[in-house]
Amino acid sequence: MTDLFVGMDIGGTKLVAGAATADGKLVGEATTPTPQRLRPQEVVDGLIDLANLAIRKAGAIWKEVRAVGVSFGGPVDFGRELTITCHHLPGWSRVPLTKVVKTKLQLPVIMDNNANTAALGESRFGAGQGIENLLYVTVGSGIGAGLILGGKVFRGASGLAGELGHTIFRPSGPVCACGRKGCIEAMASGKAIAHIAKTRLAECKDASILRHGDAKGLDARAVAQAAEKGDKLALTVILEATDALGQGIAAALNLLDLPLVLIGGGVANAGEVFFSPLREAVKRYAVPEIADEAKILPAQLGDRASLLGAIAMAVDYKDEG
Amino acid sequence: MTDLFVGMDIGGTKLVAGAATADGKLVGEATTPTPQRLRPQEVVDGLIDLANLAIRKAGAIWKEVRAVGVSFGGPVDFGRELTITCHHLPGWSRVPLTKVVKTKLQLPVIMDNNANTAALGESRFGAGQGIENLLYVTVGSGIGAGLILGGKVFRGASGLAGELGHTIFRPSGPVCACGRKGCIEAMASGKAIAHIAKTRLAECKDASILRHGDAKGLDARAVAQAAEKGDKLALTVILEATDALGQGIAAALNLLDLPLVLIGGGVANAGEVFFSPLREAVKRYAVPEIADEAKILPAQLGDRASLLGAIAMAVDYKDEG
Repeated sequence: MTDLFVGMDIGGTKLVAGAATADGKLVGEATTPTPQRLRPQEVVDGLIDLANLAIRKAGAIWKEVRAVGVSFGGPVDFGRELTITCHHLPGWSRVPLTKVVKTKLQLPVIMDNNANTAALGESRFGAGQGIENLLYVTVGSGIGAGLILGGKVFRGASGLAGELGHTIFRPSGPVCACGRKGCIEAMASGKAIAHIAKTRLAECKDASILRHGDAKGLDARAVAQAAEKGDKLALTVILEATDALGQGIAAALNLLDLPLVLIGGGVANAGEVFFSPLREAVKRYAVPEIADEAKILPAQLGDRASLLGAIAMAVDYKDEG
Repeated sequence: MTDLFVGMDIGGTKLVAGAATADGKLVGEATTPTPQRLRPQEVVDGLIDLANLAIRKAGAIWKEVRAVGVSFGGPVDFGRELTITCHHLPGWSRVPLTKVVKTKLQLPVIMDNNANTAALGESRFGAGQGIENLLYVTVGSGIGAGLILGGKVFRGASGLAGELGHTIFRPSGPVCACGRKGCIEAMASGKAIAHIAKTRLAECKDASILRHGDAKGLDARAVAQAAEKGDKLALTVILEATDALGQGIAAALNLLDLPLVLIGGGVANAGEVFFSPLREAVKRYAVPEIADEAKILPAQLGDRASLLGAIAMAVDYKDEG
């Protein structure tokens, strides 16, 4: 019998369950597209089916599982063990997800939002190994962040720490999904990058290889690729987005003097065309002595970060509880 | 024999030494104006004389002293136990202050900068008692900040955490003492408030009671007092300063979800004319769920915060070492 830990990841596009040993080695994994119309209870049933599959793939049994970690794709009331809302699925307001899973499995269960689990995953098993304090920023359709201090997730008073994406730097800037103006998310998320590129294309006549593609389906990846090829319009958009994100990261660095910032989400794959101006922006805005010592690196675990973080959380929870 | 702890505070205007019990009760204190021309070694000799006085006042002897905490009025390399520089006195670059005091007294000695010691003092014995996580911001000639997380000073990778004052929110804003543009310190410190008021008085013809006073000697206190009397020009200046400071505090709250922010320094005495617009600015810029739960309060210990924090640090150091 090996001690195993199960992670469950509820994301916008897929559900994943995995079984791993305490050192984060995945021994079984199963995934399915996120069902868009199912109620929370049915999603939990689906996750448990996936966990059964993952455990079976590992040639293991539930009796070997010591604890379960759940990564949820939306804000979580960590203290009360409730989901607050899900950005992708309806019906997830104040769901006692931990309790539901616990009742089903009769095992210790711990849940957190996917920015925190991904931060912990990268810290324990990814690009942040060996670093006590780090900021993980995921740049996707939105901007999420998780903070690891002293090797653990720092959650703050109500579990809301890491709201870097909704920090306002340009009070007269573009409207954000949250309803306010000039949040970093409204200027630097993948969605914002695509939106700004589309607006520029419509507003000006400058030549751009982005004009040759699918205008409506234009996404941040296409902008980054065009920038990589030297497209001026795309480069300007990336420069502006990284300026805003860099300003936010600099504020976090000034406050916390962190040695490492990891960038996850789709943008983590964009390479130097994104990271080089981002690092320059951070140097422009942060206290030099702090910026000089801080590394800004791509995350390493891709979309497995949350799953592995949920597993790390389960390992810690078992040890502490 | 009672266990006593000695605190030493090296400030821009005065040197203070105090002896206290482990619960922060000062039993003896002595102070003298900061000698502007003395070398570090002579300042240390002066501090030890003050400590002798404080101990004698308490009717105690050095044998009862368990550890010494030093609060330094400038940045400190905490890990290497060196001063980095002093904003007020020459000759303090890379002084091994901890070692000098240790050699003289043959006692455990710990040193930190005065923003961190003041934050710890307020946390342990002042307005932050019982609160695990808080941000202390001192608004004086500059803007300093200290962060208490889990009841302890959070120092970051190189001991530079808390550089809130040099976070840039208005890249095209006024030039800061640090040489960059648009730092919070350049828009919201006491010095900045006085400077902005003077500039406005010179630039416009609006009536203001500030015109009747000593134009050159105009300081932030005079601006706050005029604002309190309803002076429009002074109110505008306070509104702009609190907007910038509130934006910085909001960024910290979003990142850390803190339940408490304490404002120290001269401005802490300004009352509602400063705190009311500051709270509104924080609400304007922070994520609502976080801002709703965060209290923004004046610090309570005045200029004794650093001394008491140095003592708290000595108490912890003795316990840990």
